[in-house]
Amino acid sequence: MAIVLGPNHYGKAEIHLVRVYRDTARHEIRDVLVSTSLRGDFDAAHVRGDQADVLPTDSQKNAVFAYAKEHGVGEIEDFALALGRYFTGIESVTAARIEVDEGGWQRIGDHDHAFVRSGRESRTTTVTVQAGGAHVVSGVKELTVMKSSGSQFRGFRRDRYTTLEEADDRILATALTARWRHLDGDTAPGLVDWSARHAAIRSMLLDAFAATHSRALQHTLWSMGRAVLDAQPDLAEIRLTAPNLHHFVVDLEPFGLDNPGEVFHAADRPYGLIDATVQRDDAPPGPSWSA
Amino acid sequence: MAIVLGPNHYGKAEIHLVRVYRDTARHEIRDVLVSTSLRGDFDAAHVRGDQADVLPTDSQKNAVFAYAKEHGVGEIEDFALALGRYFTGIESVTAARIEVDEGGWQRIGDHDHAFVRSGRESRTTTVTVQAGGAHVVSGVKELTVMKSSGSQFRGFRRDRYTTLEEADDRILATALTARWRHLDGDTAPGLVDWSARHAAIRSMLLDAFAATHSRALQHTLWSMGRAVLDAQPDLAEIRLTAPNLHHFVVDLEPFGLDNPGEVFHAADRPYGLIDATVQRDDAPPGPSWSA
Amino acid sequence: MAIVLGPNHYGKAEIHLVRVYRDTARHEIRDVLVSTSLRGDFDAAHVRGDQADVLPTDSQKNAVFAYAKEHGVGEIEDFALALGRYFTGIESVTAARIEVDEGGWQRIGDHDHAFVRSGRESRTTTVTVQAGGAHVVSGVKELTVMKSSGSQFRGFRRDRYTTLEEADDRILATALTARWRHLDGDTAPGLVDWSARHAAIRSMLLDAFAATHSRALQHTLWSMGRAVLDAQPDLAEIRLTAPNLHHFVVDLEPFGLDNPGEVFHAADRPYGLIDATVQRDDAPPGPSWSA
Amino acid sequence: MAIVLGPNHYGKAEIHLVRVYRDTARHEIRDVLVSTSLRGDFDAAHVRGDQADVLPTDSQKNAVFAYAKEHGVGEIEDFALALGRYFTGIESVTAARIEVDEGGWQRIGDHDHAFVRSGRESRTTTVTVQAGGAHVVSGVKELTVMKSSGSQFRGFRRDRYTTLEEADDRILATALTARWRHLDGDTAPGLVDWSARHAAIRSMLLDAFAATHSRALQHTLWSMGRAVLDAQPDLAEIRLTAPNLHHFVVDLEPFGLDNPGEVFHAADRPYGLIDATVQRDDAPPGPSWSA
Repeated sequence: MAIVLGPNHYGKAEIHLVRVYRDTARHEIRDVLVSTSLRGDFDAAHVRGDQADVLPTDSQKNAVFAYAKEHGVGEIEDFALALGRYFTGIESVTAARIEVDEGGWQRIGDHDHAFVRSGRESRTTTVTVQAGGAHVVSGVKELTVMKSSGSQFRGFRRDRYTTLEEADDRILATALTARWRHLDGDTAPGLVDWSARHAAIRSMLLDAFAATHSRALQHTLWSMGRAVLDAQPDLAEIRLTAPNLHHFVVDLEPFGLDNPGEVFHAADRPYGLIDATVQRDDAPPGPSWSA
Repeated sequence: MAIVLGPNHYGKAEIHLVRVYRDTARHEIRDVLVSTSLRGDFDAAHVRGDQADVLPTDSQKNAVFAYAKEHGVGEIEDFALALGRYFTGIESVTAARIEVDEGGWQRIGDHDHAFVRSGRESRTTTVTVQAGGAHVVSGVKELTVMKSSGSQFRGFRRDRYTTLEEADDRILATALTARWRHLDGDTAPGLVDWSARHAAIRSMLLDAFAATHSRALQHTLWSMGRAVLDAQPDLAEIRLTAPNLHHFVVDLEPFGLDNPGEVFHAADRPYGLIDATVQRDDAPPGPSWSA
Repeated sequence: MAIVLGPNHYGKAEIHLVRVYRDTARHEIRDVLVSTSLRGDFDAAHVRGDQADVLPTDSQKNAVFAYAKEHGVGEIEDFALALGRYFTGIESVTAARIEVDEGGWQRIGDHDHAFVRSGRESRTTTVTVQAGGAHVVSGVKELTVMKSSGSQFRGFRRDRYTTLEEADDRILATALTARWRHLDGDTAPGLVDWSARHAAIRSMLLDAFAATHSRALQHTLWSMGRAVLDAQPDLAEIRLTAPNLHHFVVDLEPFGLDNPGEVFHAADRPYGLIDATVQRDDAPPGPSWSA
Repeated sequence: MAIVLGPNHYGKAEIHLVRVYRDTARHEIRDVLVSTSLRGDFDAAHVRGDQADVLPTDSQKNAVFAYAKEHGVGEIEDFALALGRYFTGIESVTAARIEVDEGGWQRIGDHDHAFVRSGRESRTTTVTVQAGGAHVVSGVKELTVMKSSGSQFRGFRRDRYTTLEEADDRILATALTARWRHLDGDTAPGLVDWSARHAAIRSMLLDAFAATHSRALQHTLWSMGRAVLDAQPDLAEIRLTAPNLHHFVVDLEPFGLDNPGEVFHAADRPYGLIDATVQRDDAPPGPSWSA
């Protein structure tokens, strides 16, 4: 019944890096938040306090900045793969997980070097490099969508605490986090067009959200995930995490007004929270690194 | 040397209202955060605990929802004016301040009732109705912009704590809050095209930010404010509040790499904070309601 | 009808400074967030881009760190006074406002140099140094309190949007921000025992909140402010800003349960917001620096 | 290569519940944030949109409030166990996870029904009820601690990006999240004194943090976890997640000042992030519910 060190990892979180490409007068910018995390045999560091196997998180941060210069931050997936492979080349490191969140900017008019922040969502990747190869997950965070009609919730199970009335036509809104795992992620830079794939998937998610006559948020999420996997043979799975951002019809009767789905109170908390994965039944498993 | 009640006000803050227009199959939505605040003779409520003159904040919230049905949330300035005028019609209320923040949504493709959240910034208004009339301030919050060149900071004053080096070419970035006061705000609904004016001013702010070769953030703010007042005769003033979001060039020399303005660390805190008002020298004063 | 520069100021915000006193083995620590802001004749900096009169915000940050070494961060009021006086000694600077938020730490057991963060609230000061002298405001931020009884809200004004029922016994909760202005603030270090005064006022605020049978949050705020001014002759005024953090009785009747004030839903938004100043009627005015 | 529904769960997040015990004049209050999450066979809900097996999240919220009345919120672990068992009794639900975060309040003086919020941290539990029984994890979130001495970081691995200097005496600070899994969690109410155990473990964590001469944050975390498992035979494991909140010594040399560990800049991002589990090597596994 010995006391031992269990699963552990460490790294540098939320390195906020801006990369400017200024090779011509027409600049490009990339704005990313990078987090690194390493696994390995770090028993001595914990138990005896011997840091001989520990690459400082400060060095990890430096590597991120240096790689942004040497390799560029072209596609966040390629950038993360390069970093993950570098870190797993360090003695004592057996696995590395690199997370990148990219924020969007668009050019002001057609100006060469002035930009305005676009969108609220971020494009994300989580790359895990471990024995056996690399796993690449791409995604989108806080993609906030709303339907003002075409959403119902009926025929649900009732227990003794159920007072909810059935809804034929309600607002459905969520701030979606989606993460899709690529089957062809263990690759060299430039072989996958990550941006094109991201744009296609984001577009499919939006279209499926809009087109589905929703019988529940679960139903919508399935439709979204199904549409993506149908169209993208190189994906193993897609995970959708979606708060149900409740919009309550305000009772205006006391003021002599009817309210047929026109005036809503958008509540903060509590909120429903739905998490669903749509997957190919024969897909190889993802990384063994459990959060 | 009596102890007395000084300035006071009260209201309901951050009423999150979504208004759906569904008169045709093609819905429109408005998403606003409304705060109300009332002034008046509320001595008894404070000193004796007598609430006879106090309209509950709950009633203020109800009025916001009811007005959204009765009058619609067409233009946030008109909506706020209507509410402010209603509240100042209540006995004991001498002034009302209504603040509205509107978040942007855009249609998914050309779908009739599905929308995706756009932008990070919000469109704002603060309307004050008091003896003598109404004052309307419109604005934008968190308009985040960046220039990757065309910004310098030189020739500044030095004291014994100055170590900053002069910069010929740096990143300039800010998350701008701008508030402009209208000369023609005390008006009836529909007489001012608030949206068109807002779009024009937002566009001018962006263009001036992009076009100005910046000698300091102060210099850029002046250029932005000046451009707006030049083009918009119906404004009394514009106030610009701008954090200087520092981007530091990362020293890559230890790794044998040069870094001519390509790799930056975007820092969180501390940040510079610049606040400047550009105004017409003969404009009438704004509301007497001090924050 | 010329376009001119109006009110303006600039500085460095949210400098997070930790000062360790290690003169003996028994360390002391102070953890503060400092913001500086300067006013002066900065027309040239804005209009012509000439920075000759502008002390960089970077230098202001350096001064804060250097003063923490040279003068220590003994009492935040004294620290802010020293900084404000230094900055107004700079040519071109006519006024300085220094804000400090201090977070609390307590010793772990009786350990010499290990501490645990205490409390959620912060102790604050805002010092303004300008022609005519210095003004010192001290305060507390986010002092969160709740009464589970002894609070009512009755006899209020009703309009056509009023549906609120009178409450004889409700929860009253707020996250109080209080700011008191000292009459004797323009002083040298060590002459006022700021900490003792702060502790006394904080204690009075809590006691008055607890002891007052509340007829409204306004009534409670008056009682709190009145108690403080009664006991503290050296204060000109106290301003209390208090969100009314609504706790709604949950309707458990559908489940065959009564709920006589036992189970509440603590809502986030909207919230009431009450702002009241209690003052001496003959107190000299505060700083002319309007926010 | 069919497309199928993978892992999924759903529930109601962040139900903010305040429970008042008012059986005597001396009230007690409990302030908790509750999240529920259910697993089961929900294929039809997703794939066909048939909600017959889906208990609404609204009903889950109602159950939380009703249980707070019927069973009370005595110990958050007992409260979560009761809820988890209730939900797994619903047909179609195979597992339930209940998370509770409790915020602290202390009495104002000795007042019967007035309280002030204490501490910044929260006490937490995550209870999973599934086939085979219940698993109880208790913990603490955002326990923020600092050592102003007694921390070093030396002898670490170096790569070509390493520039960090060895530190003999630095500030060590973290906002600890700790979660410990009980071996005896599958129990009836009242059989485990959760509060006493929580207080003991919190105290041990603080003492170990203070007492350990730290050779790295990893080393400190091990010491903390080891101390807890040594003293608490009824724990299977403890997981510690700790951001390394960097405090950088400010260079005051340009101002002619030395700075022997007295003036620090507390940085926000990036931060180190260390995650380590200390466990008994023969402990039974935890719940199969992977996040």
